Amino acid sequence: MKIICSQKQLSSAVNIVQKAVSTKTTLPILKGILLEAKDNRLKLVGNDLDIGIENHIETEIIREGSIVISSRLFGDIIRKLPNADIELEVDTQNNVFIRCENSDFKLVGQPAIEFPELPFVEEENTYVIGQDLFKNMIRQTIFATSQDETRPILTGSLIEIGNKNISMVAIDGYRLALRKAYLDSDIENKAVIPSKTLNEINRIIGNESEGEIHISFTDKHILFTIDEIRIISRLLEGEFINYDQIIPKEFKSKAKVSTKNLLDSIERASLLAKEGKNNLIKFSIKDEIMNVSSNVEIGSANEEVSIELEGEDIDIGFNSKYLLEALKVIDSEDIYLEFTTGVSPCIMKPTDNDNYIYLLLPVRLSK
Amino acid sequence: MKIICSQKQLSSAVNIVQKAVSTKTTLPILKGILLEAKDNRLKLVGNDLDIGIENHIETEIIREGSIVISSRLFGDIIRKLPNADIELEVDTQNNVFIRCENSDFKLVGQPAIEFPELPFVEEENTYVIGQDLFKNMIRQTIFATSQDETRPILTGSLIEIGNKNISMVAIDGYRLALRKAYLDSDIENKAVIPSKTLNEINRIIGNESEGEIHISFTDKHILFTIDEIRIISRLLEGEFINYDQIIPKEFKSKAKVSTKNLLDSIERASLLAKEGKNNLIKFSIKDEIMNVSSNVEIGSANEEVSIELEGEDIDIGFNSKYLLEALKVIDSEDIYLEFTTGVSPCIMKPTDNDNYIYLLLPVRLSK
Repeated sequence: MKIICSQKQLSSAVNIVQKAVSTKTTLPILKGILLEAKDNRLKLVGNDLDIGIENHIETEIIREGSIVISSRLFGDIIRKLPNADIELEVDTQNNVFIRCENSDFKLVGQPAIEFPELPFVEEENTYVIGQDLFKNMIRQTIFATSQDETRPILTGSLIEIGNKNISMVAIDGYRLALRKAYLDSDIENKAVIPSKTLNEINRIIGNESEGEIHISFTDKHILFTIDEIRIISRLLEGEFINYDQIIPKEFKSKAKVSTKNLLDSIERASLLAKEGKNNLIKFSIKDEIMNVSSNVEIGSANEEVSIELEGEDIDIGFNSKYLLEALKVIDSEDIYLEFTTGVSPCIMKPTDNDNYIYLLLPVRLSK
Repeated sequence: MKIICSQKQLSSAVNIVQKAVSTKTTLPILKGILLEAKDNRLKLVGNDLDIGIENHIETEIIREGSIVISSRLFGDIIRKLPNADIELEVDTQNNVFIRCENSDFKLVGQPAIEFPELPFVEEENTYVIGQDLFKNMIRQTIFATSQDETRPILTGSLIEIGNKNISMVAIDGYRLALRKAYLDSDIENKAVIPSKTLNEINRIIGNESEGEIHISFTDKHILFTIDEIRIISRLLEGEFINYDQIIPKEFKSKAKVSTKNLLDSIERASLLAKEGKNNLIKFSIKDEIMNVSSNVEIGSANEEVSIELEGEDIDIGFNSKYLLEALKVIDSEDIYLEFTTGVSPCIMKPTDNDNYIYLLLPVRLSK
């Protein structure tokens, strides 16, 4: 194999496939990335067997071929080379020569044949969605996935497609985050995607990206295509919680409050709450004022936030961490908080659309 | 005590004194900061017994008094409050009330009388030097202080004053960094300052600060005054190495090289060097080319850097970490490298002034 390509292009292509390379793998070849030069394109592949990322760049190919090379070293070297043309050459002993201006590196590679192939996902029934929208859907739900490996299905997010709609849902036993969006498709489909995969997609999609992402499923895998990048992930197996049943349809109190004011007040009250148990903060909602308070051994915090209240006064306690994570991802200026009793779930949602619901279980207040 | 002050001023004053507060102290009161309201000024003090920092802000004082309050909690709360007036009030039970707009905090404080006083340093024989220059002197030497507590004196930097000159020197047994500057004083003085103190001063002096720093000594302590901030540090006791004897006055080879080209080449070669022992890289200097190379089990790096050479060709090896740290703090475009033999110290210095000398011991190359 022998190719010439630009340092800038190669460096950004390597950065992306490296996200699928595990440093802690027991299979040494998976610490490498596969380079394959063919038909005027260089294909790069990283694969940790849960997630595989494939990227392509246009290059001048002098001799076709392929090699596996240490992801960390190759990435570090390419990043540090000057912004100029790089020549990559592989000899018959799997030695890789990297040449660029006054720099000359030799690395020992491994034969490409030993690199595990990515699962095949047919690109039929493909759904198309805006990158920016999909990134937002991830951002607004992923924090509510479970970290607890004893219920593996909850460590991922459920994607449901059908009736011109796509939903992403995460549940960890204490809260639920649900984001819906319009999708131009009637073909139903659903799958639970590991949160690690969604995290990597979130990082691969740039900010304010105007492009599209293509999604295809098989029973066991999902394929995301973003421009020249293909991300193939295994799906989580098992039955997801029937989340629709959990979401209360009625409430006794509904408070409208400024997202930023509530976030700031809870952040301050949390400074004391985190000195105690469960990050407990208390809401006391009465007339036009919501009192946000925390009371611990070394002191107390009291915050007043203006609200517009419909319905009954209520006292209720929460783990402030769970409130803050949701308030940080809600983009609307104001939110509604809906309550039934001090021991039943609270609903948080934007006032300006129906696309997002966050449900949170309260912490019982001691009398 | 009862005062009113601006959140912004209080927050930045707290940030500075917090640098002297240790989280790992065995004396619980030292986790606090002392607040003292008197004569229309609020004094704030942090003290870990090695270094003490005192700061002052102008405030409206309604009732004079003093208190010690948890540095971490107080700092976190003040930072998170809105940019508005803050009222601080202490009652007779040492409760501290912090009020700002719709926020109301109570923290339990401790009596000020229990807070250890800072050592007294008379501000006689005071030296005055530009903040920006002093920050640079620290930056160009501090990385060469020793981390090895078995020779405590080398964990600090020597400051020497006299003959219209100030020098700062750090030595760790492998290298020496010496920075000199003009100082308008003939009064001789010298002291060894813990690197932790210099680090904090470096962080307190902002970038491109045009102000001055005032320095006073006693036998055991040093006082730095930067605007309203007083930093009092203990000095290290013992005899510093007579560094002047170590610096070779002659050389057999002298190479002029671009600082940036050499830095970039060594950074790339280091990517392989760090896979081996001692970060070993080799310089082969011959005619107009300096070859920078690293050879380890998994590969090799070869870099060519253009030089102007006076004197003999030479082969010599170094720990690349020690080269990089110095190259990163030398501001001149080109440097001179001076060599005698492959086993004697190398000197690195800027080509455009005589203010800086870096001496580095080589690593013996295996034949």
